[in-house]
Amino acid sequence: MRKVAIVGIGLTKVGRHFDKGLRELFYEAAVRAIEDAGCPEIEAIIVGNMCSSSLCDQDSLGALLADYCGLCGRAAFKVEAACGSGGVALLTGYMAVASGLYDYVLVGGVEKLTEATTREVTYALAKAADADYELFYGTSFTALNALIMRYYMRKYNVTREDMALWPVKMHENAMKCPHAQFHKRITVDDVLKSPLIADPIRVLDCAPISDGAAAVVLCPLEEARRVSDAVVEVAGIACSTDYMYLAQRPDIASFTATVKAAERAYRMAKVEPRDVDVAEVHDAFSVLGFIDIEDLGFSRRGEAVKLLKEGVFDPGGKPSVNPSGGLKARGHPVGATGVYQVAEVALQLMEKAGSMQVPSPEIGLVQSIGGVGTTVTVAILRRVK
Amino acid sequence: MRKVAIVGIGLTKVGRHFDKGLRELFYEAAVRAIEDAGCPEIEAIIVGNMCSSSLCDQDSLGALLADYCGLCGRAAFKVEAACGSGGVALLTGYMAVASGLYDYVLVGGVEKLTEATTREVTYALAKAADADYELFYGTSFTALNALIMRYYMRKYNVTREDMALWPVKMHENAMKCPHAQFHKRITVDDVLKSPLIADPIRVLDCAPISDGAAAVVLCPLEEARRVSDAVVEVAGIACSTDYMYLAQRPDIASFTATVKAAERAYRMAKVEPRDVDVAEVHDAFSVLGFIDIEDLGFSRRGEAVKLLKEGVFDPGGKPSVNPSGGLKARGHPVGATGVYQVAEVALQLMEKAGSMQVPSPEIGLVQSIGGVGTTVTVAILRRVK
Repeated sequence: MRKVAIVGIGLTKVGRHFDKGLRELFYEAAVRAIEDAGCPEIEAIIVGNMCSSSLCDQDSLGALLADYCGLCGRAAFKVEAACGSGGVALLTGYMAVASGLYDYVLVGGVEKLTEATTREVTYALAKAADADYELFYGTSFTALNALIMRYYMRKYNVTREDMALWPVKMHENAMKCPHAQFHKRITVDDVLKSPLIADPIRVLDCAPISDGAAAVVLCPLEEARRVSDAVVEVAGIACSTDYMYLAQRPDIASFTATVKAAERAYRMAKVEPRDVDVAEVHDAFSVLGFIDIEDLGFSRRGEAVKLLKEGVFDPGGKPSVNPSGGLKARGHPVGATGVYQVAEVALQLMEKAGSMQVPSPEIGLVQSIGGVGTTVTVAILRRVK
Repeated sequence: MRKVAIVGIGLTKVGRHFDKGLRELFYEAAVRAIEDAGCPEIEAIIVGNMCSSSLCDQDSLGALLADYCGLCGRAAFKVEAACGSGGVALLTGYMAVASGLYDYVLVGGVEKLTEATTREVTYALAKAADADYELFYGTSFTALNALIMRYYMRKYNVTREDMALWPVKMHENAMKCPHAQFHKRITVDDVLKSPLIADPIRVLDCAPISDGAAAVVLCPLEEARRVSDAVVEVAGIACSTDYMYLAQRPDIASFTATVKAAERAYRMAKVEPRDVDVAEVHDAFSVLGFIDIEDLGFSRRGEAVKLLKEGVFDPGGKPSVNPSGGLKARGHPVGATGVYQVAEVALQLMEKAGSMQVPSPEIGLVQSIGGVGTTVTVAILRRVK
């Protein structure tokens, strides 16, 4: 198996892009990534996206974007695992290079949500759940996560105020993230007074509705060392799935798919949770940040809140968790989010993260979730000297 | 790069399955394929599908199907390239095994169209075209192919009667295909008298609206030789894309993406078009059958009609083209079609194709198209003795 490296990174600002559609957003990120990689000959394009069909009437997304980016003729297709589409795009791109079938592969993610109504977006995102056994009964994606939040708070005796610390910290982190959707500090009181969406989830517990695109260029590690000083290896990668609907799971205060994917990715990279210096985790709702930290082995069960309060996961902590501000404050352009996370962790390891930079990280972790912990991809990135 | 083999095959009948949804259809094909492979430990599931989001309100399709098939926990996701989704599913599965990341991979395709109205299906399929520059102006997928048919007939001086030979031959072939949607002979006159859809395309020029699922199990070739006598190697595979909208293409009587993907796949497998014994090609409309034959190098330009009349592509011909009846008569469960084609060619090479069997084929070819020749995957399969 060939080793795989990240050699180019491109991002758009996350937010409302009224002047850009899917293709213009993707183009912006893709061209930056390709230029950043020194303009190699891209052979394949893998696109992570969830809602292009539902909200933009667009399938054939791979070919469309390849064409618009001047890459017509190359292999191109879309991968989908709901909000975890970006994570599986990285996995697919990894396999493309590791297999030897392609040398330079563009892995991108793009999502365009803000031109649809909130009702349309809510409905489109609910397709991440089970259409026949959950969506049919009128549940929304937020409602499913509200069940999890209530259960977690009760199981570990966590207060509503404690939960609100997550978005407060994330908004603080995002102050230093140039591409973040929000540059606005919030308080625990702001969270608790924000409108109720699905009890106990309030609007400031939720990741926003976002447009955005991110892209990375992958190539064989040996090739990367030849052309670049700042090389990041994809040292471990794994994907796992869970029972689709929550009622089947033994414990909804943990995502088994995260635990399994992390175990496999750590083993592949030959590292332990304590080796991780910087991580970007999937915090679409406040409670998920705490669950992620425990599932990834950064904290014992039920202790994530305590450690967060102590500042263990602040930028420069061990590990720094979501120095970008995470889904909550960097924003959550759904199918692109996993690629943003990869790009952000790679920038940290290359020491190119600018104002977001944490001190000299060597090992990074990316966790991307699709559905309610249904499809999880975990990747371990390593700085190569 | 590890060599990759097909060791298990499962199919459902193509047609209207009022009693089955996406998960029940996929389960039927998946379990057959896994049993056929001797019940190995499946590590990853790749699902080709186009319309689950548009017509079934279902994303997270990989996880949903893994769960329902008792494969919860494994890596699973969906790939999409419109009607060519099955072809890119094979490509992705190939990379998964060739990379060494996974040993046994289930590559499946599923589509559920018949419970939606014709208007809904027409709209969903039109998303294969460019939403902003084609769909927005009211074109349908059939209308785009009608432009191609008119142009091809004029360029090569082909009559409407000649074009009708394609569906007539396909319906004849399907008489021997147990899983085909149609078991009904038709005549040239039937085609010419069938209702007009988008001039000059008539209803009997079109692949039908179908439900269905197909699955194959992939594993390393060396492993396959150890466990099975009937082994088929994926000897070559490639994917290429074309300009998204037709107005940009220099010649719409040929699909550049087919030509490029075929060149690469032939080179990888070290074979020529004349070596191919059996092929399944993507004939969603009559004209595409002729274009495919020319693009794949089975005929000179403009001569496919003449050779078809001479019976060159009949079952037992060189190559036998679409002994299954093709999309026209086997049916076209869109995202599953590419996997049906792979399964059918593999069955031929294993000499397990029953009443469809052509005499002792050694080299097979599969061509899967997404959009109007926009994303094309070509795979070369080889019988291993």
